[in-house]
Amino acid sequence: MNFKIRAASKEDCKDISRMIMELAVYEKMPDQVKISHEELQRDGFCQNPFFQCLVAEVPEEQKSKEGFTVVGYALYFYTYSTWKGPTVFLEDLYVMPEFRGKGIGKGLLSKVAEVAKKKQCVRLQLSVLDWNTPSRDFYAAKGAQDLTVTEGWHFIRFDGQNLDNLANEAPKD
Amino acid sequence: MNFKIRAASKEDCKDISRMIMELAVYEKMPDQVKISHEELQRDGFCQNPFFQCLVAEVPEEQKSKEGFTVVGYALYFYTYSTWKGPTVFLEDLYVMPEFRGKGIGKGLLSKVAEVAKKKQCVRLQLSVLDWNTPSRDFYAAKGAQDLTVTEGWHFIRFDGQNLDNLANEAPKD
Repeated sequence: MNFKIRAASKEDCKDISRMIMELAVYEKMPDQVKISHEELQRDGFCQNPFFQCLVAEVPEEQKSKEGFTVVGYALYFYTYSTWKGPTVFLEDLYVMPEFRGKGIGKGLLSKVAEVAKKKQCVRLQLSVLDWNTPSRDFYAAKGAQDLTVTEGWHFIRFDGQNLDNLANEAPKD
Repeated sequence: MNFKIRAASKEDCKDISRMIMELAVYEKMPDQVKISHEELQRDGFCQNPFFQCLVAEVPEEQKSKEGFTVVGYALYFYTYSTWKGPTVFLEDLYVMPEFRGKGIGKGLLSKVAEVAKKKQCVRLQLSVLDWNTPSRDFYAAKGAQDLTVTEGWHFIRFDGQNLDNLANEAPKD
């Protein structure tokens, strides 16, 4: 399959937004998605963008059943390790089902790894659901370490009322 | 105990660096720390800093056994959820052992939550080791959700040779 990987532009946000929802459906949490393509445009294409994004595009003659040519994306940003310095975090990696098994996911992941190396980041990190065996196998086959298994790291979240409560209890300056 | 929480300055990086090492010792991975205070100064106090940091300071008359007055820190940065938008990630939260149980950790955490709310972030996230029961209990008591337990999220990392291999296999533009 002929495909091209390129930096996303503002005009790609409708496609990215559509695929964010497709990924959330796959992850069984579609009701969690509250971000619109306008918000992606605002947050990713401003002076200090919150994220970077690559898209995978196929030629018009290979478009999807529904007529889409942007068929995958990798959305990432820079985080910071107090042990190792700047790090890349890959928030989403997605390829539409009918375009899987053709090297597009691997191509997107490799491109993000290339960005990480160029930016002197010594780590590329991401998170994956425990029941998502295809993705876990995919990353493991490429040499990734599952830090939740090997070191015991857990993800913790404050949101909603518990975040409000915490903020309200902040010491006054 | 009398303490003050304030934004870290470049001059605090020696103290922060010392406490990063103390935290890594507690987490049983001291050999992982490769970041110097000069690198913290460069990465956190430039035009587009990789992180933000708060420190907790006690008055001179309450200084630590070794003579330190900066006795805790909270280091965080902004990440991005494709479901919810901008998010705060708390990379490190640390209070020196002799200053624990006095509300300093809670004060630092609440201050970061306050920052998150001010910046319209609907989530504050962090990671914790499974055997670190005091920290897990501390977060749970404040209403945090353990997403590794409730939803099954695992941390995945590429680094070293496997990151190099991935980057080398990136499709050419």
